[in-house]
Amino acid sequence: MLYEINEKTIRLEREGRKIIKFNLGDPDLQTPMEVIEAAFEGMKKGKTKYASAAGEAKLREALAEIHGVDADNIVITPGSKWAVFAVMYLLLEKGDNMIIPSPHWTTYELTTKSLGADAKLIKTRLESNWEVNVEDLETLVDNKTKLIILNNPNNPTSKVMNEKVVDEIVDVANEEGIRILSDEVYADLSFVKTKSLLEYEGEHIVVNSFSKTFAMSGWRIGYVIADKALTDKIIKLNQITFTNVPVFIQEAALKALKLRDQIIKTMRENYRKRADLACKILSDTKLKFTKPEAPFYVFPKFDGLNSEVFTFNLLDKGVAVVPGTSFGDYPEYFRISLTAPYDEVELGLKMIAEAFK
Amino acid sequence: MLYEINEKTIRLEREGRKIIKFNLGDPDLQTPMEVIEAAFEGMKKGKTKYASAAGEAKLREALAEIHGVDADNIVITPGSKWAVFAVMYLLLEKGDNMIIPSPHWTTYELTTKSLGADAKLIKTRLESNWEVNVEDLETLVDNKTKLIILNNPNNPTSKVMNEKVVDEIVDVANEEGIRILSDEVYADLSFVKTKSLLEYEGEHIVVNSFSKTFAMSGWRIGYVIADKALTDKIIKLNQITFTNVPVFIQEAALKALKLRDQIIKTMRENYRKRADLACKILSDTKLKFTKPEAPFYVFPKFDGLNSEVFTFNLLDKGVAVVPGTSFGDYPEYFRISLTAPYDEVELGLKMIAEAFK
Repeated sequence: MLYEINEKTIRLEREGRKIIKFNLGDPDLQTPMEVIEAAFEGMKKGKTKYASAAGEAKLREALAEIHGVDADNIVITPGSKWAVFAVMYLLLEKGDNMIIPSPHWTTYELTTKSLGADAKLIKTRLESNWEVNVEDLETLVDNKTKLIILNNPNNPTSKVMNEKVVDEIVDVANEEGIRILSDEVYADLSFVKTKSLLEYEGEHIVVNSFSKTFAMSGWRIGYVIADKALTDKIIKLNQITFTNVPVFIQEAALKALKLRDQIIKTMRENYRKRADLACKILSDTKLKFTKPEAPFYVFPKFDGLNSEVFTFNLLDKGVAVVPGTSFGDYPEYFRISLTAPYDEVELGLKMIAEAFK
Repeated sequence: MLYEINEKTIRLEREGRKIIKFNLGDPDLQTPMEVIEAAFEGMKKGKTKYASAAGEAKLREALAEIHGVDADNIVITPGSKWAVFAVMYLLLEKGDNMIIPSPHWTTYELTTKSLGADAKLIKTRLESNWEVNVEDLETLVDNKTKLIILNNPNNPTSKVMNEKVVDEIVDVANEEGIRILSDEVYADLSFVKTKSLLEYEGEHIVVNSFSKTFAMSGWRIGYVIADKALTDKIIKLNQITFTNVPVFIQEAALKALKLRDQIIKTMRENYRKRADLACKILSDTKLKFTKPEAPFYVFPKFDGLNSEVFTFNLLDKGVAVVPGTSFGDYPEYFRISLTAPYDEVELGLKMIAEAFK
């Protein structure tokens, strides 16, 4: 459905319609100019050749320092999506399964299917503040469970997991010998403190990305943090698939890291203002939702809504959102992505609010 | 062995040694400045967002026109390596097999293994002008054979396949319902006429790349040409793995296509001169080899040679080549990659010739 909405949006825009795009998890902000300049410098210096499938040493070292690990634990990937795919490709055999708290990013589920593995979903609820019920999780574990995926902060709810719940899930995983794949791409910009899976014992895996933090989605650069045995396997997989992320893109990413504190501060404030505005406008409606604790999503519910029908009607009025069915069994929900300029956010939210007065 | 040689080369260079690098299939020539400028323009225009997993329409259309197919038949990939992986991932089940004429690029074999499939090698011989014996191929086919890979022109021999042999292989494939995956990344720069698999009937697949033709190896951009049913599957796989090749890189590639005739002419002449020089210098030795018909390799043989020992000794003298064992059962061969400036090519070849006077 996500792709259908996107295609219809593109079609309407081609027809000359102005669409407020709340449908993509793609920052509207521009990549900082210093980062672009660093890529250009890299190209001119001939950083346009084959390179290490692990990533450039300098970039791995800089990331290792940020995350308190060794450079050997880091592999640079074309987006965190590749990192997720690589981990699943290497750890899931046909017939294995992976546990995914839902609502969830569809890619996790599509990838398990592509690999002939099963996705076991745990439904979480708005009414329970989107907490994972750890007993539910335990009952899903069997001897074919190889991975638990956590997306913290979560897409589409923008909820940060309760630390105690994470502690309990890690305990279950460590007892059962299951690895956790923790997708933390929204963590750097979170409005509240988040605890990384790196802070726990166990052979768990963290993926992260430059896409959201630095408005670099289309540069396709992310990374995985794991034990050396696994990073070695990922490097070998990189060697037979895409070879390396272009070195000039890695140089741009290194520049982004040098400006990290400043960029994060600016981006976070920007998204926080949009989230505050969303809360303000939507509070005045019959929609139920939890306050976003991270960029960029709000995932409101309206009892009895057919969100697919609603979504297509809203798109005809000029606002693109994504129905909840794109993130699991959530037909009464829809996802608003606050990745548009402030005035468009305001206008779009008011149009949505109008429908639920 | 290829990777070990590369690592030792890098180590020696770090120690301050000057190494003539005949070990990589990576053009020493720089990416044309117009292409770099096009990427920079793209970045500045905000072409740094998520985009179509199929590739940009303009680039697909330009490639479709060059190859005489529809844009729907083209998918843009991060290098032809990804195109090869994607095709094999989608068409090979565990226990299936793929036939590979040898000597061959190791990635083909590593990828079959990674997918739990078998690589069935057909040995070709210098003494038979590296021709594939089609009867040998027929005897290897069984009901688990899903693909035949052809690399034409070939790495490491730089031999262009005899058209009649290709005709016969296509006949066998079409009779048996097997697809051919034709890796044609050296075809654009070939010194002699090559016949693309696109000129044949049957649901065959061609992969190509900007890496060699435009000295864009480290940009990671290539493409696959196939029937729409298969390209649709590759697009879906792209969606769950890397999303898209950065749009600014696709704009650079489009610029390269606009300058295509001029760039190809310059590049081809450059490599032809190096190949001629190699033939001249090596003819005066006890090495046996076939004349390169395409960039950039020479694959000479010396009867009784232990090429792994030879390679490490030669590297200590300052010239990096790759032993024949990296391309199959060719212990008496080594691969020289003529991807170094002309004067280095001359010096390095003379050092090699010295050993086989």
